[in-house]
Amino acid sequence: MEKAILHEYSASGNCYKVRLTAAHVGVPLERREYDILKGETRTPEFLTDVNGNGRIPVLQIGDRFIPESNAACFYLADGSPLIPSDRFDRADMLRWMFFEQYNHEPNIATVRFWLAFVGLEALSGMQREQIGVKRKAGNDALKLMDDHLREREWFVGDSITLADICLFAYTHVADEGGFDLDLYPGVIAWMERIMLHPKHVEMNA
Amino acid sequence: MEKAILHEYSASGNCYKVRLTAAHVGVPLERREYDILKGETRTPEFLTDVNGNGRIPVLQIGDRFIPESNAACFYLADGSPLIPSDRFDRADMLRWMFFEQYNHEPNIATVRFWLAFVGLEALSGMQREQIGVKRKAGNDALKLMDDHLREREWFVGDSITLADICLFAYTHVADEGGFDLDLYPGVIAWMERIMLHPKHVEMNA
Repeated sequence: MEKAILHEYSASGNCYKVRLTAAHVGVPLERREYDILKGETRTPEFLTDVNGNGRIPVLQIGDRFIPESNAACFYLADGSPLIPSDRFDRADMLRWMFFEQYNHEPNIATVRFWLAFVGLEALSGMQREQIGVKRKAGNDALKLMDDHLREREWFVGDSITLADICLFAYTHVADEGGFDLDLYPGVIAWMERIMLHPKHVEMNA
Repeated sequence: MEKAILHEYSASGNCYKVRLTAAHVGVPLERREYDILKGETRTPEFLTDVNGNGRIPVLQIGDRFIPESNAACFYLADGSPLIPSDRFDRADMLRWMFFEQYNHEPNIATVRFWLAFVGLEALSGMQREQIGVKRKAGNDALKLMDDHLREREWFVGDSITLADICLFAYTHVADEGGFDLDLYPGVIAWMERIMLHPKHVEMNA
């Protein structure tokens, strides 16, 4: 593989996913940090050279760029056991990855970012009003995960896949957004399995 | 392939994506309609038997279920030219599919649903307040697509992929949400290419 560079804000769970995937498959990543609180991913240079969508993470492979965290994880894991070889299981893995970006991240990660990084006082009125709706939707997502994990060790099949890695990233810091993970014992047991994996790396590593 | 059943609300672009993919790859779909405006995907039977997340579409393959529209499309297209065989292009296709679910659908599809199906008068105060933010974000998504398509025929590589099909579904009805597609000539030319494809089917087919 050509040299891989991760353009990131390291406290972002979306960026951590890519690092955790890289650790599992043994790909070294060069890391470049941008402070999103200072708008460093909205500069003309970033928009032109890295990602016109103004977001991190972006995985750079040689001189080409892959925005969208879950797509970057897929690139790194392609051909590895993190992506099931069975057709149904492969689609089922993507099902949980799309669920993560649609139902989980916009609620759990956003409330965490607002409360733990931006701060309640600095939020707009519209943002403050949305906290209740996002907290309910985030808990609905955690409940769906918990129900699924009550009788399973991993989200898909019988070993760890990208579905687990991508859902773990923001779940394991959901308490920073005020979510009570003790309500979801299946989720807690699953997180422990992930953290015990010999190739696991922590978010602040 | 085992018998494929699409659990759907046919006016949903997310459901249309799955039908359009099936038409391209030549897989017959049995269709089962649910009226989401009457809560037919939130009944105890639907939640237990089809999708605990209470959403359509769900693709049923034999006695197994794949929620999340883009994952269902991936299942149907797996092994076909709709998914690039090149590793970078395959991840790049997923990049646009995740963009679709994160930046495009929650803005363009939601405003269309609110204005054309629910009706302005029936929206909550919080929903009405969000229309402006979602309209701007939807236009940002269309602008990003237009910039990408100015010098390209398809989103990825040199032929149609799932990225085109998944982005087409809600883009081609964006005017029903009050989005002015005439502002995006690259998008319009791309939509015409998709509609001229010999395997194309319309949303109301």
